[in-house]
Parts: sequence; structure tokens; C-alpha cells
Amino acid sequence: MAVGLTGLPPLHAVGGVRLGTAAAGIKKRDRSDLLLIEIGPDAITDATFTRNAFCAAPVIVARRHLESSTPRYLLVNSGNANAGTGKRGIDDARATCRAVAELSDARLEQVLPFSTGVIGEPLPVDKITAALPAACGNLSGDGWSVAAHAIMTTDTVPKGASRQFDLDGHRITVTGIAKGAGMIHPDMATMLAFIATDAALEPGPLRRMLNDAVATTFNCITIDGDTSTNDACVLIATGASGHPVIDTRNSNAYRRVYDAVLEVCTTLAQAIIRDGEGATKFITVDVQNGRDGEECRRVADAVALSPLVKTAFFASDPNWGRVLAAIGRAGVTDFDIDKVAIRFNDVDIVLHGARAPSYTEQAGRQVLQQQEIVIQIDLGRGTGRARVWTCDLSGEYVRINAEYRT
Amino acid sequence: MAVGLTGLPPLHAVGGVRLGTAAAGIKKRDRSDLLLIEIGPDAITDATFTRNAFCAAPVIVARRHLESSTPRYLLVNSGNANAGTGKRGIDDARATCRAVAELSDARLEQVLPFSTGVIGEPLPVDKITAALPAACGNLSGDGWSVAAHAIMTTDTVPKGASRQFDLDGHRITVTGIAKGAGMIHPDMATMLAFIATDAALEPGPLRRMLNDAVATTFNCITIDGDTSTNDACVLIATGASGHPVIDTRNSNAYRRVYDAVLEVCTTLAQAIIRDGEGATKFITVDVQNGRDGEECRRVADAVALSPLVKTAFFASDPNWGRVLAAIGRAGVTDFDIDKVAIRFNDVDIVLHGARAPSYTEQAGRQVLQQQEIVIQIDLGRGTGRARVWTCDLSGEYVRINAEYRT
Repeated sequence: MAVGLTGLPPLHAVGGVRLGTAAAGIKKRDRSDLLLIEIGPDAITDATFTRNAFCAAPVIVARRHLESSTPRYLLVNSGNANAGTGKRGIDDARATCRAVAELSDARLEQVLPFSTGVIGEPLPVDKITAALPAACGNLSGDGWSVAAHAIMTTDTVPKGASRQFDLDGHRITVTGIAKGAGMIHPDMATMLAFIATDAALEPGPLRRMLNDAVATTFNCITIDGDTSTNDACVLIATGASGHPVIDTRNSNAYRRVYDAVLEVCTTLAQAIIRDGEGATKFITVDVQNGRDGEECRRVADAVALSPLVKTAFFASDPNWGRVLAAIGRAGVTDFDIDKVAIRFNDVDIVLHGARAPSYTEQAGRQVLQQQEIVIQIDLGRGTGRARVWTCDLSGEYVRINAEYRT
Repeated sequence: MAVGLTGLPPLHAVGGVRLGTAAAGIKKRDRSDLLLIEIGPDAITDATFTRNAFCAAPVIVARRHLESSTPRYLLVNSGNANAGTGKRGIDDARATCRAVAELSDARLEQVLPFSTGVIGEPLPVDKITAALPAACGNLSGDGWSVAAHAIMTTDTVPKGASRQFDLDGHRITVTGIAKGAGMIHPDMATMLAFIATDAALEPGPLRRMLNDAVATTFNCITIDGDTSTNDACVLIATGASGHPVIDTRNSNAYRRVYDAVLEVCTTLAQAIIRDGEGATKFITVDVQNGRDGEECRRVADAVALSPLVKTAFFASDPNWGRVLAAIGRAGVTDFDIDKVAIRFNDVDIVLHGARAPSYTEQAGRQVLQQQEIVIQIDLGRGTGRARVWTCDLSGEYVRINAEYRT
């Protein structure tokens, strides 16, 4: 079940980007598990990666290649994370890049590798290189939907978003796909996102756009503030729209493109949570009026992380004491509980640190039976704000994660 | 199921301490839910409490009373935490203390209240005061076992431990009881422990003994470094053994008593994890050779907290990549993965940051099928060490916490 998701929307082609897929048989036979994204020679590309200290081999290689060259190909496989594989993993990742270079006019360093799947197993390089010609053979600007399918692991639905708008007489497109369903605690190979626009951007504004969009979307579902061994988000700007190059972030054009990128990232990030393993509810934790944003984020993370809060929401049980207790252990100093207020959607739960006079158990139960719930927390001591997205914790989550790999 | 627990051992009486219980009908009828512990006038008592910013009313009152007076009574109820109850909660807690004072020769401030159970419901003061005479009426030095039952909430077994030894011709006894089963994430009203000895201690050494024992036992099961709204651990020294007063922690007598207190606390703390909600495995996370103890503790907490690690252990799935990923996101800087080694019991899993050459999937499966597993993590960069105890995460955990209250 994916909360509120209703299949892929139309994913518009982005000039300068082609996508091809193949079934390499990495983990399962006859399942599309290899994706090749071809990027035109005029495009620029940037990426953000996991902050996990033990990042996977493809992350190490992709970072290195990105620093030295302009990417021409992204090679993505599902079914194997190539993480915890030591020096051999690095060699394997480079070997797959080399195979792409040999099939194209790109240099080895112009290929960025991405892997997602089980940690600790050697990457089946031979299977990947054997399937590469097939992926090259079906490269197409309309390949976004099949690409969204090829990068799925425990995802139950493919994830994509696309926006188009007119900018000074040019039609601008932003299209993205993502994978991720174990994102509830992103401590394994969980999330990949690839977003492209045919707007033209200088490297500085492109990086700024990527970082800003990720900060309030994908990094607001990395509930514990961390990322997995393999997480990556890539933003490509091809310039194929013909619109003049955007060279500053202080322009209307930048803002318009950014808004579309942000919308695509928001949809993709929420889709990952909506498809969270075992999720039956989509929960927004919105913390307001803390001393600063960092304090609010700590509180939001503590609530969004609490298994007791998440199981209560799964059970539609308005056990708000668990929310209060989670706030209390967020590590914020000098808390005055008398100023804290909590609402679930439009229902007052806690006022002045105790049960709201208007609260009834029935109202609490009704609001918790909804599929989309906003937990609003007012700390009453400043103007800071932070918001994270999460889902409930069900027995199905345990079943999925206990049976994964077996 | 409580992993490796086989019922209460004999709990020896401690001179100067009597315990009485009653069924107040706080949450369920005809179930013992009220405990009164009477402390002799020559005893000294100290306590540690939750660090949660939103501590419960009884914690606030008990702290205040402990600062101003020598405790003569501990009044403990299960079924209601008296937390998130605002000013009324304080008044209610004091009202129950007053009721004890009126039935005895103690002053109001000489009574410490303790509550455990659901957060956010008013304390049923009338039920408690009505049941108090019954609890007074059956006060007995042999009441430890019935007391261990009276403080249970979602516990499936009562928890107690007792040690006796001879010290300079005096028989010294240390006996303790505890409750707690939702301690996997201690963000609700989870843990209470009451330990008494008939050794005689000055206040300074008593406090030191309590703090040291708690630091390496009960605080090593508070997996996220936090405590609940109601947690408390009390240590009573009555002096009834006749052994001379211990006035320094640099004596053999202090060490002997401390060792017994530590053993009792270790048994009780482990019992809480062994009875962890839905637990099927008892897991020790032992992190060695970090730069310092704090760094090791961060790593140990990250592993012990990871739902993906815990579900893998539940499934007896040697998915060690999840352990590696959890270590990597512990927030430790400048990690060198090449120096990291991981063992499960006596099986080498990771050497130099990659799968150990000797490792086989079969060996991994065999070790994970055991009920008691030590995850040994060697960071290879110092002499620090930390150890925490935790349990696996099963579907039963979700069921218990989704159904609690309903």
C-alpha cells in the first residue's frame, strides 16, 4: 500500500537526456534492473551524496568522477548496493564505468555509477556489462517511466514527477524519478533520485538549486539526520529549451526553475514516505516557535523517530503522551512544558503542557483514523520552524525487513 | 516471552525495610497495583530520576521531597503515570503523600511518590488513598516478591535480584526489584527500580554507589541516551546489618557492597531488556577501541537503535551490512572503514571494512539463531569502550504498542 499514491503521472521528455534500461539479472531474472542515462554534451550536472561515513564504492567513484569531469552517462543498478565491499568494490564500480565508455564516446571519468540493493555482496560486473548494449540500444528521451521502474527495490510503486511552464517564451521542463521505500530509517541503501531540466544554468546556481531543494525535501525525510551508504540525488540542466543561461540565483528565471525543481523534489520525497515499508499513514511533523530551526528539527526528528509514536498512529490510538514524551527527550534545554501546545490536524490535543480542555478521546480517534495527519507542535518560545515527513510503524514494516534478503 | 528469564529468585529481606501492597483498581480491578515501601528511621535513601525535560509530577515531587527530608515511605502505583497532567498532577501526587503521612508518623515530605502507566490521565487519588490502609496493613520484610508483582505494567514477568555476603563478620544483604518492558525506546513511563541494602553508608558514598551502578546498568539500556517521563532508581541503605558505617568509597567494604549492588542492578537492567516488548533475543553491543568511551557509546547506540538491525536479528538474518551502515551514521568523524572489524559472538563478520574472508552465510545464520548474541565492534583507533544491552524488534512489539491502552 502506498498512502495516497495513484501511479506515475506523465513524465515529459527533457531535451538532451535519454534513458535506456535492461534486465541484467542482478538479483532476479527478467526484471529490468539496469538504467543508463545519457546526458548531452552541453548539459551540466551536479549531485549530492550520502553523509554516511561508510559510503558505498559507487558513491566514492561518482564523487571523484564528478570533481574531475563533466558527466555524460549515469549508470544505475538495483539489486546490489556495492557497499561494504572494500577495494574490490571500487574496482568493480570503475569497471562498469569503463564498459560504458567503451560503448560510447565518453571517457571513463564521464560516467557516474549508482547502485542500490543489498550491502556486502560483490557487484556482478559481468552481468552488468553483458546487459549494457541492450540498455544503450533502447536509449530514448521518453524512457523516464521505464527508468522509474528499473530503479525500484522494495518500492511497491514507481516514483516520478514532471512540471512544465513557460519562461520568456520558452517551454521549460523539469522531470525526475526516485526510488526508496526503506527510508523510514535511512540506514541502508535506500534512496536515489535523478532530476533533469532543459533550462540552462551556470554551475553555481545549479549547485545552489540542488542543495536548497534537497534540504527541504529529501533531507526532511532522512528522519535521523543521516543518510544511507548509497543515497544520491542528481540534478541535470541541459539547456535544450533554448532559454538563456541562468547565471545568478537572484533572477526571476532562477526562481521559476527552482520552484519547479522544488515541486518535483517534494513530490518525489513525499512519494518515498508514502511508499514507506508497511506505511498506512502519511505524517507531517511541523514544529513551530522554537528558539531556532535547529531546535525545531531536533524535536521534529525525535517525534518522527519514536517507534511508540509511530505504532500509536498505526493503531489510530491518540496516545498523545508518547508525543509529549518524545518532545521531552529531544535534548532541548530549558524547556517550559507550560508553553507547549500540540494539535493533530485541526484537533487541539495539548495546551499549556496538559490535555486541552476541549479534547475528547473520540475527537482524537477520529483524526487519527485519517490517512494524512499533521502533528503540529508549538514550542512557544521563539520563531524557529522545522518540518519533517514520516509514516507510521506497522507490523508489516517488521515483516518486510525481517524477510528482506531471505 | 522473556529471553532467558526463569522466574523470581529468592528475595532476601533487608532489615529496616518493609513492603506492603494493595489492589487499588487504578486500571484493572483485583490486581495488585499499589506498593508502599516503609524505610526505617536510621536508613538513608538516594534516587536518580529521568532526564526527560517533561518529567512527570511524581518525579518533580519526589525530587523536591528528597532534597528537604529523609524519606520514610515510597509510594508506588502502576496503571497511571501522572505525567502530562499539569499543576493538578503535582497536587494529586502530594495528596497521596499526605494520605501516607496521615496513616503513619512520617511528615508529608518524607514520602516519595512514584507512578508508572499511561501518560495524560489524571491520577485516581481517591482509589489510591482508599487502598492505602490495606497496603499499610500487610507491610512485611518479606514483601519483596509481591512488591515486584505490584509494580508490573506490560511486564510479562516480575523482576528481582538479591545478593548476600559476609563482611567483617556481618551478613550483608542487597535486594532489588524493577519494572519495565517498554524500555526498548524509553520514551514513555517505563522503568522503576528499588534497591535496598542493610549496609550502613554515609550520603556521599551512597550517592556515588547509586550513580556508578546506574551508569553502567540502567543507563546502558536507555538506548537513545534518554530516559522516560517517570524513570526512577532508588537505593536505600538501612544499616541494619550492624556493620560499621562506610564513609569513604576508597575502602574494601565500599567495594564489596558496590559489587553486590552492581550485580543486582545488572540483573535487573538485563531483566528489563530480556522482557522487552516482543523480544526474542538478548543482544549486547560491545564497541571497543574507539577514541574514547563517548564515541564508542554513540556507535553502540546507533547499532542498538537501528530498526533494520533489530528486525534482521529477529529474523536470524546475518544482514551485517545494516550493522555497518548504522556504525557509519553514528556521527563519528574521520572514520577509517578499513580498520573496522565486527564479530557476532565468535564469528568474524567484517575485517578491514569488508566481509571477513572466513565468513560464510551458514556461520552467520547459525550464530543469529542463538538467543543471546554479542555484537562486537572494533573501531581500531583508540582504547575507548562502551557496551549497551538491547533486544530484537519483532512484529509482536508493534502489536503490543499498537494495542496498548485499547
